[in-house]
Amino acid sequence: MGSGLIGTSLALSLRRRGVAVWLVDRDPAAVQVAVDRGAGEPIPSASTSEGSQPALVVVAVPPAVTAAAVADALRRYPDAVVTDVASVKVPIQRALVAAGVDATRYVGGHPMAGREVSGPAAARADLIDDRPWVITPGPGADDAAVDAVQELALAARALPFLMSAAEHDRAVAVVSHTPQVLASLLAARLLDSSETAVSIAGQGLRDMTRIAASDADLWAEILSANATPVAAVLGALRGDLDALLHALGSTDQSGEDVLIDTLRRGNAGRERVPGRHGAQSTPTAVVPVAVPDRPGELGRLFAAVAAAGFGVEDVRIEHVLGRPTGVVEITVGESAAGPLGAALGAAGWDVRA
Amino acid sequence: MGSGLIGTSLALSLRRRGVAVWLVDRDPAAVQVAVDRGAGEPIPSASTSEGSQPALVVVAVPPAVTAAAVADALRRYPDAVVTDVASVKVPIQRALVAAGVDATRYVGGHPMAGREVSGPAAARADLIDDRPWVITPGPGADDAAVDAVQELALAARALPFLMSAAEHDRAVAVVSHTPQVLASLLAARLLDSSETAVSIAGQGLRDMTRIAASDADLWAEILSANATPVAAVLGALRGDLDALLHALGSTDQSGEDVLIDTLRRGNAGRERVPGRHGAQSTPTAVVPVAVPDRPGELGRLFAAVAAAGFGVEDVRIEHVLGRPTGVVEITVGESAAGPLGAALGAAGWDVRA
Repeated sequence: MGSGLIGTSLALSLRRRGVAVWLVDRDPAAVQVAVDRGAGEPIPSASTSEGSQPALVVVAVPPAVTAAAVADALRRYPDAVVTDVASVKVPIQRALVAAGVDATRYVGGHPMAGREVSGPAAARADLIDDRPWVITPGPGADDAAVDAVQELALAARALPFLMSAAEHDRAVAVVSHTPQVLASLLAARLLDSSETAVSIAGQGLRDMTRIAASDADLWAEILSANATPVAAVLGALRGDLDALLHALGSTDQSGEDVLIDTLRRGNAGRERVPGRHGAQSTPTAVVPVAVPDRPGELGRLFAAVAAAGFGVEDVRIEHVLGRPTGVVEITVGESAAGPLGAALGAAGWDVRA
Repeated sequence: MGSGLIGTSLALSLRRRGVAVWLVDRDPAAVQVAVDRGAGEPIPSASTSEGSQPALVVVAVPPAVTAAAVADALRRYPDAVVTDVASVKVPIQRALVAAGVDATRYVGGHPMAGREVSGPAAARADLIDDRPWVITPGPGADDAAVDAVQELALAARALPFLMSAAEHDRAVAVVSHTPQVLASLLAARLLDSSETAVSIAGQGLRDMTRIAASDADLWAEILSANATPVAAVLGALRGDLDALLHALGSTDQSGEDVLIDTLRRGNAGRERVPGRHGAQSTPTAVVPVAVPDRPGELGRLFAAVAAAGFGVEDVRIEHVLGRPTGVVEITVGESAAGPLGAALGAAGWDVRA
């Protein structure tokens, strides 16, 4: 139900596995686009036989109308398991309890994928591949219903994570919604800054404001829907900010101690950000290489990295004054950095070790 | 004066142009390392003739001792122009006024370059190349002295930016010091989060916490030295944060309006972040390409980009669950994105347009 970006992408993904998919949308044109792209067939009319009853219904409509659509699906298809894909879970679960629907057959979900564009034309069969798909069974959900949604996530090649709706909403508040707010608050500070001030900005500011370019209306909706968990994280952060502001105003050693403590807790928190292997942050190291500003040099560099036999975890080009400097930072596993640097150096590259 | 990372790098840079450089440091071993690396010669003893008088003295010692070293240099070399490289300027200018030194010959400066390692062994001749070098003449400075420091910056291949000391300190407060504080405050929030919450983090959190790994002691010193401008930016930001927290707690349209306004001001601020051509942000576009997870594929991809005749502005590898997904985002000028995508597609690459 819902042939937008996520619904159509999921349908395309399931079609790869030969799963039969029926599509419905309040906009018949959206269904037609999805059908034309091979995402499935329009749902048969209710008047046809028992064979047209779905086993599983995925509600992929905007968050504000998700609970009503889930309740409708539970009533309309009395034997089907129903799930949804909204990015905030507690408000939907609450609305369904208030509506008195059959909670045994509903299991919430959130495939953590998206694009900066919407609609069925932008859908991709691989949009959800390898993405976390959080599954949030309510207390009344049947085990079989939970299993069905997990199988759905696996069939779509996503990585299912089981958690409660409240746990999900707290998690996205800290790992997704709070970073969005901070990027926006920081970028807004540039509106008060002189042209000269902005012109000396470097890579740190670029990285810290990238997501400030996100869609304002969409994010206002998301923040509203998850207001309580987001406010809890931002409130705690404001407590730390107030302590830091107080420390900046004091001239004694205790102020300095607060500054160092704030920065050290930041060091420790950063250590928890996942590395290559999922939740466990693997130690990595950066090999900086100066690359001449000529076409083809990046190709030669990565060919040399491959020839040396190393896998690349990440790549960044350092920027100064908004321009690439010609220093390419190659992130590899910690133990690979020394040998890779030596190999590149031996091959004539200017390694900045 | 000072044969550390910046002093020695600057000396190496000037030696490329054949400039005569004398080195001095409270640690004779540091001078020896710098001399051995070709950064110049130890300064002749004061007893020798007039020929040993420097024309320009660069004080490159830690911020806390910079003002005293500048005052000493002004007294010791009565004909020399004296500059420094400390990352905060107003406190040094104030200390020099209080010390009653000859302000006509002192012009502050800040080459905006650094490395995560220190000392003369880590110095590089090209560390300052293409970097902003902020020059902050006090009200009493001679024009000739300002010119001499600008020539120094140009000789070192840096990009001189003239501004007042106060303007410099306000600029770095917003483009460098505030981003550092926000990254640390955000990363610290992860210390209160469950393992599961952290495990579903994506690229946004990674980008927003990267600089939270910075050296805590060094940054506490920097924030202390620039406390007033940093507190002004953070105080204004806290005002916006308070309004947003209030909006999250309200259920009416005015709350929603505050959220949208905050996010839109973030959009507008982000637009001010410099693109490739200095202060003017040039429109760029991203060409996402799915790359098989095999050694050598990045090399093949960038060879194909070069073969198509396009320059690359930036490169990112998208990460999910801390792992590269195989989608490489190539940033190019806006008008080049379509042709590059078409060329890569024609060459058999899986372009995600």
